Amino acid sequence: MSSTDLLLTFNAGSSTVKIGIFSIESAEARHIGKCVIDFRADPLSLSLNKGLQTFDLPLKAEVTDDLHGVIDETFGLLANHFDMTAAHAAGHRVVHGGDRFTRAAALDTTTIDAVEALIPLAPLHQPQALRFIRALRHVKPHLVQTASFDTAFHATQDDLVRRLAIPRSLHDEGIKRYGFHGLSYKFIAGELAGKVPQAAKAVVAHLGSGASLCALDKGISRDCSMGFSTLDGIPMATRPGWLDPGVILHLAGERKRSLGEIEDLLYHRSGLLGVSGISADTRDLLTDGRPEARQAIDLFTLRIAGEIGRMAVTLGGLDAVVFTAGIGENQPEIRAGVAKHLAWFGLSIDEEANAGNDFTISAGESRVAAHVIATDEEQVIADEALSLLAAR
Amino acid sequence: MSSTDLLLTFNAGSSTVKIGIFSIESAEARHIGKCVIDFRADPLSLSLNKGLQTFDLPLKAEVTDDLHGVIDETFGLLANHFDMTAAHAAGHRVVHGGDRFTRAAALDTTTIDAVEALIPLAPLHQPQALRFIRALRHVKPHLVQTASFDTAFHATQDDLVRRLAIPRSLHDEGIKRYGFHGLSYKFIAGELAGKVPQAAKAVVAHLGSGASLCALDKGISRDCSMGFSTLDGIPMATRPGWLDPGVILHLAGERKRSLGEIEDLLYHRSGLLGVSGISADTRDLLTDGRPEARQAIDLFTLRIAGEIGRMAVTLGGLDAVVFTAGIGENQPEIRAGVAKHLAWFGLSIDEEANAGNDFTISAGESRVAAHVIATDEEQVIADEALSLLAAR
Repeated sequence: MSSTDLLLTFNAGSSTVKIGIFSIESAEARHIGKCVIDFRADPLSLSLNKGLQTFDLPLKAEVTDDLHGVIDETFGLLANHFDMTAAHAAGHRVVHGGDRFTRAAALDTTTIDAVEALIPLAPLHQPQALRFIRALRHVKPHLVQTASFDTAFHATQDDLVRRLAIPRSLHDEGIKRYGFHGLSYKFIAGELAGKVPQAAKAVVAHLGSGASLCALDKGISRDCSMGFSTLDGIPMATRPGWLDPGVILHLAGERKRSLGEIEDLLYHRSGLLGVSGISADTRDLLTDGRPEARQAIDLFTLRIAGEIGRMAVTLGGLDAVVFTAGIGENQPEIRAGVAKHLAWFGLSIDEEANAGNDFTISAGESRVAAHVIATDEEQVIADEALSLLAAR
Repeated sequence: MSSTDLLLTFNAGSSTVKIGIFSIESAEARHIGKCVIDFRADPLSLSLNKGLQTFDLPLKAEVTDDLHGVIDETFGLLANHFDMTAAHAAGHRVVHGGDRFTRAAALDTTTIDAVEALIPLAPLHQPQALRFIRALRHVKPHLVQTASFDTAFHATQDDLVRRLAIPRSLHDEGIKRYGFHGLSYKFIAGELAGKVPQAAKAVVAHLGSGASLCALDKGISRDCSMGFSTLDGIPMATRPGWLDPGVILHLAGERKRSLGEIEDLLYHRSGLLGVSGISADTRDLLTDGRPEARQAIDLFTLRIAGEIGRMAVTLGGLDAVVFTAGIGENQPEIRAGVAKHLAWFGLSIDEEANAGNDFTISAGESRVAAHVIATDEEQVIADEALSLLAAR
């Protein structure tokens, strides 16, 4: 590749796709731009960031199942700002790698079929990336495509940690704890190793609208609060996290709720939104004076702290807690709320450092360190894609 | 009452009923005998213990829905050993008290109806006690009857701890964490207060075929691993404990399992039995050489230890761990397995004391104490019944 080659990253969610534009310089991927298409908007528009500039560009293409028109027009618009003829590769974030993918993979017919075969494990999320992979293959067949999996970073976990107490035949068929948000945790593990290598046993709290925790031992994943699905673990914007299985039996049995209703309840109407009855967004809840808003925030921080306690047992100790992602990076009140529950355990926050979102927010005397680190999943997708390109 | 009055306790499970015989002496209930009827046996037989004597007595009565024949014949057989004309009261263990019963209650038409109204919260367990309550009311109408609830001891828990991250309307309708095994925890709290009052923050592990943990602060329940149903928390003989809610959606959605099949899977084929594929009984698993048996034991102890870590956060500290019930009182290997995961936290076991099922099994230098205490749910039922009789 020449030094001006471009690499794209695709992070497809339920209602948006984030496209990262990277230049390959000295065998490193450097983020030079990004754009977001919001599929809830009508007509579609594309929001582009390049350096300090932001452009909101209207899209004429209709959203079709195959996305061919949207991809074509997007590449056309990006060509006004970047040399898209130099784009040689596209790396995708794929939610589920199952047991098949324990690292990033180049995408060809065989691996795409394997990614598709994992849809039953993530029926709501896996198809999103696949749509873009198939569309790019059709519209831009010259692009080398790669997949980076949210589950892959957790392949290092012990069999016991990944096991649910269900019949072992179901475990063998794939009903086990996989863990998610792996691209974020891989990025944080790299940052920790560089900046605080002495923090061997760390729990990372990835707190976004989806949220989970990961237990790291010297950068290796040992546990994750999200398990088989993206519903488990700590409460999220609209998902419940840990839930007594008896609740679902009760809703289906005694209350005759359909499977579709229960799925909607758990994915879209629980979590912070459900508990508060006000908002799924911690920013709204923190400024809302009503006790229901406070209750949702308090449940969120209590459950995060409880999960840190559980993970300290998996790790056999705890040197540091790391906060990342939208909430983790920007909301001192949430971090302070979590830390309050761990004061007895030797975690003490420096209020000024916390208010400033500093890298180190624990007080000097704190036995357990606390850090704030901005995560960058796109960088991990790009780095993994670049490694696969180099290995070709 | 005269000093020779008798009080009976009824602890009805899914396949057996345990009947305790207490004499009332100086306003205290003293356990003088017990019997068990196993409803899986055909013909029925009653196993009676009185002092050091054991009697296996055949029953002629058929098991009918109303149990009238069985109750009549049982009282007749007991009359050969005890002065049943002095029996004035019967106390029942009732699984679910909901929000209605936060303490034991005398049973009359109103309270029996209220107990019955809670069946939707415990459809498999609540009817068992009700059968005996109704049968005794018919066959022995002179008996004063009382109910002791497994949930009541946990009514002291904070609203936040009892809350699941689901829509608050469902919480208000009763879908919340109640906690169970409360009669056992009440007994243990009393023992702790008497024997080691300095152990303010304690986690009690009630490990039987049903198993849960309770966080006690100065004897007050602050958390329980069993929540809304008896499925939640740590793995049990045949129940899974904590389970990603996505697993149930997957089984119902992708695998088209019926609600009845899933219920059977979770209540009867998961837990130690499911993981090992060998046995639901830790005694079998501990002596079985196969790795699957070891795996089930290891998952059991890891998950118990993890839950202790979570509960230490609820309590804001941990002074002691207490093991009780069949497994907790008698299986040193299980206690050692749990303790191993908490060594980093300052829990160190004295091997000899542990092997001997001593009251204190932690080593002298251990920062966290560990105790073994035999529980006695029947004593709590009898004590609560006696208090209610005294208040009449």
